[in-house]
Amino acid sequence: MATLSDIAVSAAINCFSALLFLFAFAILRLQPVNDRMSKCILKFLNWMPAALRMPEPELIQHAGLDSAVYIRIYLLGLKIFCPITLLSFAVLVPVNYSGENFEEMKTNMKDLTYSDIDKLSISNVAPGSSRLYAHIVMAYVFTIWTCYALYNEYMIVAKMRLHFLANERRRPDQFTVLVRNVPPDVDESVSEHVEHFFCVNHPDHYLSHQVVYDANTLAYMVLEKKSLQNWLTYYTNKFERNPNKRPTTKTGLWGLWGKHVDAIDFYTEQIETLSKQEEAEREKVLNDPNSIMPAAFVSFRSRWGAAVCAQTDQSHNPTVWLTQWAPEPRDVYWDNLAIPYVELKVRRLLMAVALFGLTFCFMVPIAFVQTLANLEGIQKAVPFLRPLIEIGSVKSIIQGYLPGIILKIFLILLPTIIMTMSKIEGFTALSTLETHSAEKYHLFLLVNVFLGSIITGTALQQLKEFMQQSPTEIPKTVGVSIPMKATFFITYVMVDGWSGVAAEILRLVPLIVFHLKNAFLVKTEKDREEAMDAGSLTWAVSEPRIQLYFLLGLVYSTVTPILLPFIVVFFAFAYLVFRHQIINVYDQKYESGATFWPDVHRQIIIGLMISQFLFLGLLNTKRATNATYFLIPLPILTFWFFRFSKGRFESQFKRFPLEDAMKKDTLERATEPNLNLKLYLQDAYVHPVFKGSVEFERPRVVDEEENSPLVATKRSIHREGKQGFREISSSSEDIMGISAV
Amino acid sequence: MATLSDIAVSAAINCFSALLFLFAFAILRLQPVNDRMSKCILKFLNWMPAALRMPEPELIQHAGLDSAVYIRIYLLGLKIFCPITLLSFAVLVPVNYSGENFEEMKTNMKDLTYSDIDKLSISNVAPGSSRLYAHIVMAYVFTIWTCYALYNEYMIVAKMRLHFLANERRRPDQFTVLVRNVPPDVDESVSEHVEHFFCVNHPDHYLSHQVVYDANTLAYMVLEKKSLQNWLTYYTNKFERNPNKRPTTKTGLWGLWGKHVDAIDFYTEQIETLSKQEEAEREKVLNDPNSIMPAAFVSFRSRWGAAVCAQTDQSHNPTVWLTQWAPEPRDVYWDNLAIPYVELKVRRLLMAVALFGLTFCFMVPIAFVQTLANLEGIQKAVPFLRPLIEIGSVKSIIQGYLPGIILKIFLILLPTIIMTMSKIEGFTALSTLETHSAEKYHLFLLVNVFLGSIITGTALQQLKEFMQQSPTEIPKTVGVSIPMKATFFITYVMVDGWSGVAAEILRLVPLIVFHLKNAFLVKTEKDREEAMDAGSLTWAVSEPRIQLYFLLGLVYSTVTPILLPFIVVFFAFAYLVFRHQIINVYDQKYESGATFWPDVHRQIIIGLMISQFLFLGLLNTKRATNATYFLIPLPILTFWFFRFSKGRFESQFKRFPLEDAMKKDTLERATEPNLNLKLYLQDAYVHPVFKGSVEFERPRVVDEEENSPLVATKRSIHREGKQGFREISSSSEDIMGISAV
Repeated sequence: MATLSDIAVSAAINCFSALLFLFAFAILRLQPVNDRMSKCILKFLNWMPAALRMPEPELIQHAGLDSAVYIRIYLLGLKIFCPITLLSFAVLVPVNYSGENFEEMKTNMKDLTYSDIDKLSISNVAPGSSRLYAHIVMAYVFTIWTCYALYNEYMIVAKMRLHFLANERRRPDQFTVLVRNVPPDVDESVSEHVEHFFCVNHPDHYLSHQVVYDANTLAYMVLEKKSLQNWLTYYTNKFERNPNKRPTTKTGLWGLWGKHVDAIDFYTEQIETLSKQEEAEREKVLNDPNSIMPAAFVSFRSRWGAAVCAQTDQSHNPTVWLTQWAPEPRDVYWDNLAIPYVELKVRRLLMAVALFGLTFCFMVPIAFVQTLANLEGIQKAVPFLRPLIEIGSVKSIIQGYLPGIILKIFLILLPTIIMTMSKIEGFTALSTLETHSAEKYHLFLLVNVFLGSIITGTALQQLKEFMQQSPTEIPKTVGVSIPMKATFFITYVMVDGWSGVAAEILRLVPLIVFHLKNAFLVKTEKDREEAMDAGSLTWAVSEPRIQLYFLLGLVYSTVTPILLPFIVVFFAFAYLVFRHQIINVYDQKYESGATFWPDVHRQIIIGLMISQFLFLGLLNTKRATNATYFLIPLPILTFWFFRFSKGRFESQFKRFPLEDAMKKDTLERATEPNLNLKLYLQDAYVHPVFKGSVEFERPRVVDEEENSPLVATKRSIHREGKQGFREISSSSEDIMGISAV
Repeated sequence: MATLSDIAVSAAINCFSALLFLFAFAILRLQPVNDRMSKCILKFLNWMPAALRMPEPELIQHAGLDSAVYIRIYLLGLKIFCPITLLSFAVLVPVNYSGENFEEMKTNMKDLTYSDIDKLSISNVAPGSSRLYAHIVMAYVFTIWTCYALYNEYMIVAKMRLHFLANERRRPDQFTVLVRNVPPDVDESVSEHVEHFFCVNHPDHYLSHQVVYDANTLAYMVLEKKSLQNWLTYYTNKFERNPNKRPTTKTGLWGLWGKHVDAIDFYTEQIETLSKQEEAEREKVLNDPNSIMPAAFVSFRSRWGAAVCAQTDQSHNPTVWLTQWAPEPRDVYWDNLAIPYVELKVRRLLMAVALFGLTFCFMVPIAFVQTLANLEGIQKAVPFLRPLIEIGSVKSIIQGYLPGIILKIFLILLPTIIMTMSKIEGFTALSTLETHSAEKYHLFLLVNVFLGSIITGTALQQLKEFMQQSPTEIPKTVGVSIPMKATFFITYVMVDGWSGVAAEILRLVPLIVFHLKNAFLVKTEKDREEAMDAGSLTWAVSEPRIQLYFLLGLVYSTVTPILLPFIVVFFAFAYLVFRHQIINVYDQKYESGATFWPDVHRQIIIGLMISQFLFLGLLNTKRATNATYFLIPLPILTFWFFRFSKGRFESQFKRFPLEDAMKKDTLERATEPNLNLKLYLQDAYVHPVFKGSVEFERPRVVDEEENSPLVATKRSIHREGKQGFREISSSSEDIMGISAV
């Protein structure tokens, strides 16, 4: 348990380290090799006003709705926690401070350390004291305020989404529906079957369709060819720089062994062979009916027709002809388009069991690997390292750090593992993959970071304990240790939250990765550009982490208000930084139109309800049983609020109402009566591998956002790989001389 | 605890009482007053073969799909439990009988009675014995078999429904969508607003609409007028029979007090006054824009158009323009059509809390009333009864029976209370009201009959105990008392199940009610006809009771197999009786097309999972911890099966796929190109009160089903009040000379 001064020191250290980062970066920036990387944050001292100055509509136009709504999560945090902080400091801190349980506790619990912070927390209120009613009233006030803020925010985001969808330019996914599980037909090919089915059942609306090819092998070949070409460029450059000596390579894996050959000849030959194979594979995929998957992108004459098809059941067998809105073309996850219904259900079951295992037993495999990775194990596996290991210092390093490093490696790998699980579950869009991964990661953090920090021991042990306790005991067990962990979480907020955000503005991790890549992997200019990819918001990792701060703030709002300012600072700092990053650094991979908001809303309410149950448990241990009854309606009302807001808003994020579809259709028909929609949609949903390269062919159009006078962005160098279809649509509209509505 | 011979005696008594009922009925039938009532079951000795002989397609045509599927629930019970019974008797009974824990138990537990039945149950297997593996294997076999039977049945019912919908004649609800929460508009009336909205958003499909009037006052007036007319008829008849004396009545309530007047003049005058008031009210409702509710029945040109509108979101505000399939006209619950969104949500919350209270605290108000209704209370409230009460025998009757009678009265009132709760929740169709009431009643039976019988004490006490136990303790507590309650439940199956079914075939309750009404209430021939209403399936009460037998069978299948034959006999007997009742007695109030099947399926799976958890708990107390681990996958797999079958079938029961809608439309367009749909739909959804009387005007058409050669039915006298729109549609088809497809 830290005292107040300890925490002040810790805060000072954290601020100092943040400054150190800035200083280090200023030096690094001077080296020419960092030059381009550093351009992103050239004016790192005057970015704050710039980041705040851009108005929201422009931000949406500039960075997309997803990003604009993402930073609203931080704003929501501020909206919720600023008034709560003020109120707790005005009401609860005085009540707690004058509680005078302190001296008593000090003498009673000699073994437990007891600090100044506890004087400001609920621990300082004597059990059974009528002061606890202040906390109960505050619990109600905080819940009502949180719900009000959540409701308000849901409404704002829903309006933003609506406005965004209404103003959105024409995009292929507005007219297209993804049809999966096309039933096999003995007489017709998949393509014919799809055409006939939709001609019959949507006669006035069906326009065209695009079958989905099983092009995984082909995509792999294309990737391999690209890599070979890169090597060829590397050796050609080498030869040009040093024309006297033709470079050589070895034929084996990664050029490490095998016989010596002339590198340029070798790679030229290899590329030729692969090109022929690729051509053959391409022919095969396009002509073999077996390589057509039982799925298709079906396009309609109007948004209305597509909206109808996406929202209705097509067949009386609900496992075939499954329709859903097509994801944006760049959002499609091609590998998962053809999973049969039963297999999908089995996959979901397996992944649910796996998620349970991952969350509650994740220490088991790690402990196992750690046992294997001890000294004896290593000596047995690689006997030639024995002399090295026997050196004293090496030995102690392995023994001291190896277990920790293995855990750290696992935690770094965790998002990838979770994403792989979501991929196995069979979702068909990248955005869906991300939201489902975020959900899993949220559960993991909740169990292993939040509960794991409060109750020592692994999650599995906790689960065992909980199973043997009564349902009313669990909140008590957890609740009673909550005030004691306040200082730990204050430190956590500073180390993980503040420093994490500081590292983000300095892009520390990408910088290190870039330098590592530059040193070991970069061979050609193209490689360097790829290594410099600015990255994008990693939703599946960032969002669950924010949720942890919401949870901490809500749990401690009634218990230890001193934690709240740290949360507020985190949200304020993060808001500024991410607003800046979104404007100046990140590339957007896809645009889902803020479909993730219901998840954010739900997870905050889960946090709110957890805080209520824990507070209930805590009060129970305070011998305030009568007071506790007043709290019972709180979770019930919160749950009702959840159901209410879900009914009120959620469908706006999942479905596209016919009224709006009709409005857009009518407007478009009036402004562009001669639009050739079929031509426009022709190649929208062709597998990227058939577009000549793995990446999409994109016409280079100067983007009007670049000329935004308010914030001078340095994104143009990253822009080449961005934009995608928005430009196609804008260029086609430009051709017709019509501005977007 | 009863011995085997006790149970044999009990079974004999039950059979005897059933015979007694039959005998009593034969005598009653001889009296002329029972004559018409008894026609229903004239050939009560040879009905069984007749009931079995009617093939299912004909049964569906004759009694509707709802009824035909209802008796399939009993058939499903037979399908599940016949093989389970055989297997348990072949495997588990020998294993248990040779278990030889009997003598030991007998000496150990002197205080607990121990019977022969326990020798055949799992109690006879020693704790930790490897014989328990036989029970575990059987638990798997029974679960797999039950799931297989459930899946099969779901598939069959889905096919039946599909076939039924495909062959269904034209009905107004196929073309109509119920639109609720029409937003207010300053410039337009509700009717104009609806018309404009659907003309704009469904331009090719919108046909017409019918606004909903708030006609509750008017409906009340019509009812009152009907009652007055009935009195007038009564006195006119009286006068005709005895022309010398003009009958008189009193002006006060129910003719009990007030001044004497000439009855015929009085009622004629009263009717005239009311007729004028009614006319004025009718005028007012039709002309006052405030009496139009913000809801409408919107009809479309095709089933496809209606299917689209019912399944899609109309507005970006998901609380207005809510669309759903219109219920059948006779299925509409008119009072609930105009509840605003927020109010609806608040009502649901209140009713959820009320349901919780009803289920867990239902003993509290009863105990309260019982305390009030003691002797002192009665003496205080009605002092003039004191001399009567002070007679010894009356005193003992009141003291002995009153508490029991109050409980019984409450249990009789329970279905009405539950139905009222569902009405407050705001469902818009009678069928939905019934299914939701059934769900609530199911919960009540589960907690208060099943758990309440196993664990003594009120549900509230149970809940308190459970809250203080760990989640793993609850199944143990319940599980361990399960074998001890076997004899009780065997008696319950006989008394409640067998005798209940016997009483049903004799229509004992309706007979008593009829005689009571006949004695006290019936005044005219019309009254008598109404009192003789054959009734219909009371889904909300019957279905949850069947579920109780499924639960008992599943729970005892592995524990005390001796209970299973009693369950099988119940299902077989009930199947025969209800098949007969459906063919010959019941009137059908509405036809939902078996939309309730997903509920039946879900509730059986709930029973299955409860049985698994209880078996797990029981095994835990048998010191077979290792064996228990084998059982953990069982509920997980069962739950997965539930999710799987839900995804596979449920949407067939909730939505109408476009493919089938299109098929019917196309066929109809080919066979009846000149159909005037607008005319056909014109009056379909007019509030019944505007049709001249509370009941619908129905053209009397001879129904072809009456001439069915296989089963001679006696329903024609009940038929007048039935049929409704099926006949309208059939008659209009007859006019056009086209047979139904």
